[in-house]
Amino acid sequence: MSDTKDKYPLLSSIEYPSDLRELDKSQLPALCSELRSFIVDALSRNPGHLASSLGAVELTVALHYVFDTPTDKLVWDVGHQAYAHKILTGRKDVFETIRHFHGLSGFPSPKESGYDTFVAGHASNSISAALGMAVAGKLENKRDKVVAVIGDGAMTGGLAFEGLNNVCVNPNNLLIVLNDNNMSIDMPVGGMSKYLTDITTSRFYNDFRFKSYHLLRKIGLMNDSKKNKLMRMGTSIKNNVSGSHNIFEGLNIRYFGQVDGHDVLQLVKVLNDIKDFEGPRVLHIKTVKGKGYEPAEKDAIVWHAPGLFVPETGERIKSDKSGLVRYQDVFGQTLLDLAERNEKIIGITPAMPTGCSMNIMAEKMPNRVFDVGIAEGHAVTFSAGLAKEGLMPFCNIYSSFMQRAYDNVIHDVALQKLNMVICLDRAGLVGQDGPTHHGAFDIAYMRPIPNLTIASPLNERELRDLLYTAQLPDKGPFVIRYPRGKGVGAEWRDAEMKEIKIGKGVTLKEGTDIAVLTFGPLGNEAANAIDELDEKERGKVGLYNMRFVKPIDTQLLDEISLRYKKILTVEDGVRTGGFGSAVLEYLSDKGCAIPVIRLGLPDSFIEHGTPAELYKLTGLDKDAIKESICQNLK
Amino acid sequence: MSDTKDKYPLLSSIEYPSDLRELDKSQLPALCSELRSFIVDALSRNPGHLASSLGAVELTVALHYVFDTPTDKLVWDVGHQAYAHKILTGRKDVFETIRHFHGLSGFPSPKESGYDTFVAGHASNSISAALGMAVAGKLENKRDKVVAVIGDGAMTGGLAFEGLNNVCVNPNNLLIVLNDNNMSIDMPVGGMSKYLTDITTSRFYNDFRFKSYHLLRKIGLMNDSKKNKLMRMGTSIKNNVSGSHNIFEGLNIRYFGQVDGHDVLQLVKVLNDIKDFEGPRVLHIKTVKGKGYEPAEKDAIVWHAPGLFVPETGERIKSDKSGLVRYQDVFGQTLLDLAERNEKIIGITPAMPTGCSMNIMAEKMPNRVFDVGIAEGHAVTFSAGLAKEGLMPFCNIYSSFMQRAYDNVIHDVALQKLNMVICLDRAGLVGQDGPTHHGAFDIAYMRPIPNLTIASPLNERELRDLLYTAQLPDKGPFVIRYPRGKGVGAEWRDAEMKEIKIGKGVTLKEGTDIAVLTFGPLGNEAANAIDELDEKERGKVGLYNMRFVKPIDTQLLDEISLRYKKILTVEDGVRTGGFGSAVLEYLSDKGCAIPVIRLGLPDSFIEHGTPAELYKLTGLDKDAIKESICQNLK
Repeated sequence: MSDTKDKYPLLSSIEYPSDLRELDKSQLPALCSELRSFIVDALSRNPGHLASSLGAVELTVALHYVFDTPTDKLVWDVGHQAYAHKILTGRKDVFETIRHFHGLSGFPSPKESGYDTFVAGHASNSISAALGMAVAGKLENKRDKVVAVIGDGAMTGGLAFEGLNNVCVNPNNLLIVLNDNNMSIDMPVGGMSKYLTDITTSRFYNDFRFKSYHLLRKIGLMNDSKKNKLMRMGTSIKNNVSGSHNIFEGLNIRYFGQVDGHDVLQLVKVLNDIKDFEGPRVLHIKTVKGKGYEPAEKDAIVWHAPGLFVPETGERIKSDKSGLVRYQDVFGQTLLDLAERNEKIIGITPAMPTGCSMNIMAEKMPNRVFDVGIAEGHAVTFSAGLAKEGLMPFCNIYSSFMQRAYDNVIHDVALQKLNMVICLDRAGLVGQDGPTHHGAFDIAYMRPIPNLTIASPLNERELRDLLYTAQLPDKGPFVIRYPRGKGVGAEWRDAEMKEIKIGKGVTLKEGTDIAVLTFGPLGNEAANAIDELDEKERGKVGLYNMRFVKPIDTQLLDEISLRYKKILTVEDGVRTGGFGSAVLEYLSDKGCAIPVIRLGLPDSFIEHGTPAELYKLTGLDKDAIKESICQNLK
Repeated sequence: MSDTKDKYPLLSSIEYPSDLRELDKSQLPALCSELRSFIVDALSRNPGHLASSLGAVELTVALHYVFDTPTDKLVWDVGHQAYAHKILTGRKDVFETIRHFHGLSGFPSPKESGYDTFVAGHASNSISAALGMAVAGKLENKRDKVVAVIGDGAMTGGLAFEGLNNVCVNPNNLLIVLNDNNMSIDMPVGGMSKYLTDITTSRFYNDFRFKSYHLLRKIGLMNDSKKNKLMRMGTSIKNNVSGSHNIFEGLNIRYFGQVDGHDVLQLVKVLNDIKDFEGPRVLHIKTVKGKGYEPAEKDAIVWHAPGLFVPETGERIKSDKSGLVRYQDVFGQTLLDLAERNEKIIGITPAMPTGCSMNIMAEKMPNRVFDVGIAEGHAVTFSAGLAKEGLMPFCNIYSSFMQRAYDNVIHDVALQKLNMVICLDRAGLVGQDGPTHHGAFDIAYMRPIPNLTIASPLNERELRDLLYTAQLPDKGPFVIRYPRGKGVGAEWRDAEMKEIKIGKGVTLKEGTDIAVLTFGPLGNEAANAIDELDEKERGKVGLYNMRFVKPIDTQLLDEISLRYKKILTVEDGVRTGGFGSAVLEYLSDKGCAIPVIRLGLPDSFIEHGTPAELYKLTGLDKDAIKESICQNLK
């Protein structure tokens, strides 16, 4: 404990922001430095989101120093940047539990702390949520201030724009801090990103503008209405200087910037200057992702979430020795292999080229891969436009982010029955990212959509074959869901790709009493569970890899319903409306009364933890499946 | 036929755009005038979207005159504006069938014509779709041109912004025509709308810019690279002149405008000037909704879709004499009644204050109603921000548009279990607007979301009581779905509002053999069907208004499963994962094998027609329900 005090003399005295506000301004740079060491040290032992959090240290300190949190409200957009915020708001001593089962969440979580004002797992929601809070404050005549902190990556999401578009029309004094590190997780894309670079190139202008403002205020020539005029004049000066066009001012939001986001004293000064202004404002700060930790500054993509590492050297420690390939890499490599044969294939990703491994194709064929930024709706509709013209898009979106593009799948893809492939990466439980990121709902929300084919592979090989099948002519919209992480070691790389018959399942093992029906890689857990049964019991159990939830293999279901006494379905999605329900619906329509036991995720949001912990928690690991089988054999 | 030739001498000679392109430019104003009369005349007898289509007559003529459609591609954003387009592209003679069962669709429909390049029922998708087409053209080295036509209302949608943000980074020469009538369906909202007003105030600048461009081109001083410079210079002149900030130029999209959208010759000239430019461009035209038909110009909200009218006088003909009140008005009036008692209540609508009748509250309490523009995602997340601060938002969104805000419901509302009300208007089959607008999926896509309560009223009275119940303390997120159109005459206005017990259904009639379980107003059809049975049969049939699909009334289901031989479920949503599946899932989990027959929408997109035609088509009208009952009594 005295060790800690030696290492972090300022930080160790801070439990809550009220303690921080006791410090003299001059101590803040030292505090930032301690915070940074604390984060690097903690994350070297406990993997987490490093680079974004390092970039937001000074901003976090300045915000809590200037604003009266938690009465004033901070709304973080995507919680990657909020680690320093957690440390300063009563959670320093448990910070090492971050992302652990029953430990701190990796994202702001209102359940966890009153300082976390809103859920922030999916990007771009902060402006809308904060505007709601700010308008509520105005309506209730409160004087609380609301600050949204949004990254430049999140600013490319349509929801952020919808929020911006509404900011000026309602009575509120929302402050939006644009934390611009010229990065989302991968490199930023789009006009907005170019624009933010342009807008910040004219240091001269900004210096002039701020100096003249402070001069006028000093000599008493400044009041609110004049301030407004000066700001507008300032903007048109800037347009002359930099040739850029201020989108925020265009939307009637006062713009301040750019400010060096690593100069904590300057940040405190600027925030104090503008915090009491009436009306919505944007403060544009420039930061460096990974700031202050050299390896992370050099390669912020790798250091976004680096895993374990040696803090002194920046050497990353490989914790996985299984030698198993990730489903992501099977996707990425297969996509490239297919694209080499089929020149119609185009790759589309909303800001996740590295995460989904589409970077493998992008490196070889940069003109045929489109990273559209954090913009899932656009990713799908843009793909639909490509498909309409006869190309074969592979649009890869994480399952929980696809919730953002639900209407696009229905209205722009399915209704027109376009030939394209939708890959749902991170389907099922994703682990440490928790409830905002679990791909729990996709089977249930995709299944009601007409014209879709929906498949999930048992293993690497089947993923490769499904990807191959989906791009064959006239397959219509084809959805393939697969989980985050390692496969099971099925040979895939050298095997010839072969077409999988749509709507056909596979008999893995025949039995007499119970048929276990699986959808996706959980089928391997079911197989392992069956292997552990004693021989007599094992003979009673059949195992079927259904592969498709839509269309479901009705012929196989007919055979199964005649042969067995019970059906057990296993899926890594919600039980409500999922794969098991598809089985149930078909059998009910046939008038078949065979009992169906459905294993799947419960009707609640699942916390964070390792996938193993969570599959155990939800009764979907090998042991739980085995227990279900045994119970139903009785 | 000769009548038609007299009345429409030019129009009658045009079957396809190739005929149009045979005309001399000087004939175009006369053609526009004929087209306008043709539309007014046709829609006076066949209700449709009048005002938007009148506003786009000159633009439509100019686009087909200048561009080589259908090789060049027009992508309309929201098809309301596309009636003239339909008339000029081979569908003049069947135009009177528009929105009729088996007739022309009210929206562009690729199924219907090769000139309709993309589905356009939901706003804001045109830029993304057209960009996909334009990029496909570039990748395939085609010389086809792609034009997206988007209204200023649709421009407030996040998807449009995501599209814009990606327009500049890909190789393409997309032309975006911003058809700015300062209107969506209701009045426009947001910074974007103010911005568009600002940007168009400087006629002087535009005149100067276009004149200097044409002068330079004439004397041979203009080439592509210089043109680019002039345009940029022009923009910065404009910023000096008008003080506005060009959002499009900020996003690296060349901006041209404003142009009078009712001067067809000017439009032809400008389109010819800019059609061969390289790179993405925006052409900003100003139009008047309802242009050329005085009653519509005066009140474009009413004349958006006026129903039947006398063309000469503009007198609107009331076709409904039932005296029944619409569910929309029950919602609107009840919301006001509740807001008068509960000062925490706030109304939120994405651009549909008139459509959903929230205008009733807005007139009395303008500060407590927020029309956020076409921005469903923002509507939900903004509501969540209000709810987080203890207010009680009623966020009303059409069922099919809620698909746009699916993630917001999951991530921003349900995960935080916020106390707020989500009203799904236009649930079930909406009729003439067809497949893009049917509220077919909401039961299936809402049901898997944890923490939600999902209810649907049997009639007006129950809607009022559900609205009352939902705003009582600590009810969590509460979804109420109800259909478009008339109720059934249940007294509601003067009855005292009473709390409905959550998760409890109602026994309407007891029976012995078949229990009919309904969710929502289709229960009235089921009651009528049962009334028509002969007495002996009638005694065998029970009828249950379940009211809630989540939580479902398990106690009542237990009783029913013991008492009856069969269950028949009736819902106006897709059978896949819907209300019937909820019943099935519960009974299966209980190990109860009672047969369940599920009536609901099939697994396909349903065409347009009157609600009566469509409910008959899908087997959900009184006769079909009666037939199902009789079959299952055998």
